[in-house]
Amino acid sequence: MSSIIDTVSWLAPDGSAHFQWTEQTDLTGGRLRIIDQRKLPESLVYLDIDSIEDACEAIQTLAVRGAPAIGCAAGLALAAAAGRIAAENTEDFFRRLREYSERLGTSRPTAVNLSWALNRCMNHLEKRQTLPVPELKRELLKEALGILEEDIALCDRIGEYGAGLLHDGMGILTHCNAGALATGGCGTALAPIYAAMRKGMRIKVYADETRPLFQGSRLTAWELQRAGADVTVLCDNMAAQLMREGRIQAVIVGADRIAANGDTANKIGTCGTAILAYYHHIPFYVAAPYSTFDLSLKDGSEIPIEQRDPREVTEFSGKQTAPAGVKVCNPAFDVTPQELIRAFITDRGIIRPPFPDAENRI
Amino acid sequence: MSSIIDTVSWLAPDGSAHFQWTEQTDLTGGRLRIIDQRKLPESLVYLDIDSIEDACEAIQTLAVRGAPAIGCAAGLALAAAAGRIAAENTEDFFRRLREYSERLGTSRPTAVNLSWALNRCMNHLEKRQTLPVPELKRELLKEALGILEEDIALCDRIGEYGAGLLHDGMGILTHCNAGALATGGCGTALAPIYAAMRKGMRIKVYADETRPLFQGSRLTAWELQRAGADVTVLCDNMAAQLMREGRIQAVIVGADRIAANGDTANKIGTCGTAILAYYHHIPFYVAAPYSTFDLSLKDGSEIPIEQRDPREVTEFSGKQTAPAGVKVCNPAFDVTPQELIRAFITDRGIIRPPFPDAENRI
Repeated sequence: MSSIIDTVSWLAPDGSAHFQWTEQTDLTGGRLRIIDQRKLPESLVYLDIDSIEDACEAIQTLAVRGAPAIGCAAGLALAAAAGRIAAENTEDFFRRLREYSERLGTSRPTAVNLSWALNRCMNHLEKRQTLPVPELKRELLKEALGILEEDIALCDRIGEYGAGLLHDGMGILTHCNAGALATGGCGTALAPIYAAMRKGMRIKVYADETRPLFQGSRLTAWELQRAGADVTVLCDNMAAQLMREGRIQAVIVGADRIAANGDTANKIGTCGTAILAYYHHIPFYVAAPYSTFDLSLKDGSEIPIEQRDPREVTEFSGKQTAPAGVKVCNPAFDVTPQELIRAFITDRGIIRPPFPDAENRI
Repeated sequence: MSSIIDTVSWLAPDGSAHFQWTEQTDLTGGRLRIIDQRKLPESLVYLDIDSIEDACEAIQTLAVRGAPAIGCAAGLALAAAAGRIAAENTEDFFRRLREYSERLGTSRPTAVNLSWALNRCMNHLEKRQTLPVPELKRELLKEALGILEEDIALCDRIGEYGAGLLHDGMGILTHCNAGALATGGCGTALAPIYAAMRKGMRIKVYADETRPLFQGSRLTAWELQRAGADVTVLCDNMAAQLMREGRIQAVIVGADRIAANGDTANKIGTCGTAILAYYHHIPFYVAAPYSTFDLSLKDGSEIPIEQRDPREVTEFSGKQTAPAGVKVCNPAFDVTPQELIRAFITDRGIIRPPFPDAENRI
């Protein structure tokens, strides 16, 4: 028996989705099947996860990436691993499960959704400590599937609200991948595009390739192409020229973290794209779950910028793109100042400036 | 006997330069030795050119690139090939030479300096048709070396004028390669940096990698590193973040063509960088020979934008960076509007706005 969570069924040729949960016929436990994003766009390969080791490796090596997708995968991977625990009693089961959850939680320490999803699953079970182990395993799976289903619904709401900002014939630029591959549903930045397509609007999507890891050309272009969208790939440095030519009517990006005043941390290159849009009088939208607002941060200056491995910039596919030993900048994120953002597209509606009191405005 | 044109002697480990002219001891003719830029930054390999076939291949496959460098190489390659013509008489020699010049002229049709250098060499000889063939060969070499020497002097003048705009401790961003590897001398955009270094200024240079062909990280970073400069490579989409952090005090780029009003065509990504500089109140300079002004063009809208092979964007080193069959934008150049340019650094001095009557201002 196989239970498919039908989120974005265009991703796989057999009509299956990004996250698949499969029960084994011998009832030893289910497993999570995900698309191995390391292999995209060259080949569509699935990865079966039924142990914490597999799950940690998948998250660490970016087989699954995107904060919401990592959260969804973590819950289901924990459920798969828990299903295989041969515990003598409830205490024994919880001891093993907590160990699993802790190991999984360290696989990408900065991914907020990872620890959030694991904590949510563990809290759900700890409130039900008196249940027998098989019941606990079922409850864990139920909660993990709940996380996935909520993410699907959240993406759909972002899509609906965002589609209201779009119109037929628009050219939309996006950066990095904040699409179906990054979430449990149809994405954040791409959700309004998918929703607009469902409403029959013809949208031309321009996908920044997004150096250094090419998430835009490898992932965004791949999923849009599979969805039948009209997608064009460009190098990040070509966006200004397309704007000058009048081919872009809106920019939509995702967000990793949004400060109380609206300053937004997202994939490196986002801020530059926002400046280009501002200069050309093109609206720049940030699409993100409302939970991305971190109201404990007054503004973007409080968001730390992670520096990543220089080899991401100096090497590709075994070939040097810069001389050996050269100094490299490789910030993973940048901060887009709120004055460049026309509006936020969230699951709770469109939030427009002034942003400082975002919480009070919806 | 070997005659080395000592232009930028840091480029090669033996102290030799970018362009070397070598006479054979048996007096059958000289040959041009250049750095094979296709092999950079992984290895420093020289390419010997003594035939028109070699020269055409070197230019077509970008072993030598950069408009001024192509001009210098074309003249010397023509001289090398001419030295090997075993002509019965002057008429025979000219017939072969014209055929060579025409073949070489088509190797990169859009490179203005290529046809300019070849025409200059041919005109020089046609005025001396009565000379015996050995004399004609010497005259051709003299003219070709003259082109190289003038380019060296021109770069030095750009460097001197440009260095006057810089000061100790500055961070300077550049895009693509408008350095020693692109010219016969020490470059155009990089000339002020080399001149400032010679004056003892400490300059931090930031080199945009320049997608899709990585001329910034492969070539600019390589030559600056060899010259002992403090150089840091970044992806094109990281410049805005560095500007926000206050690390960039000026941007200097080269130019392929400048319209009468100052609108400037240069490597794709230049316009976006200029907009980022403008937003951050950072001066943006274009360094180019005065001959780059094309006063027959009223403004940038008259400059055609070449679209290049999509595979430059979708593949690198045999690996796909985008899904098969996806649409791609790959403009080779963009046009930076004159209002974003603080000044032009030319061999005839600094040209400041208003630009429309550039010719009258110097």
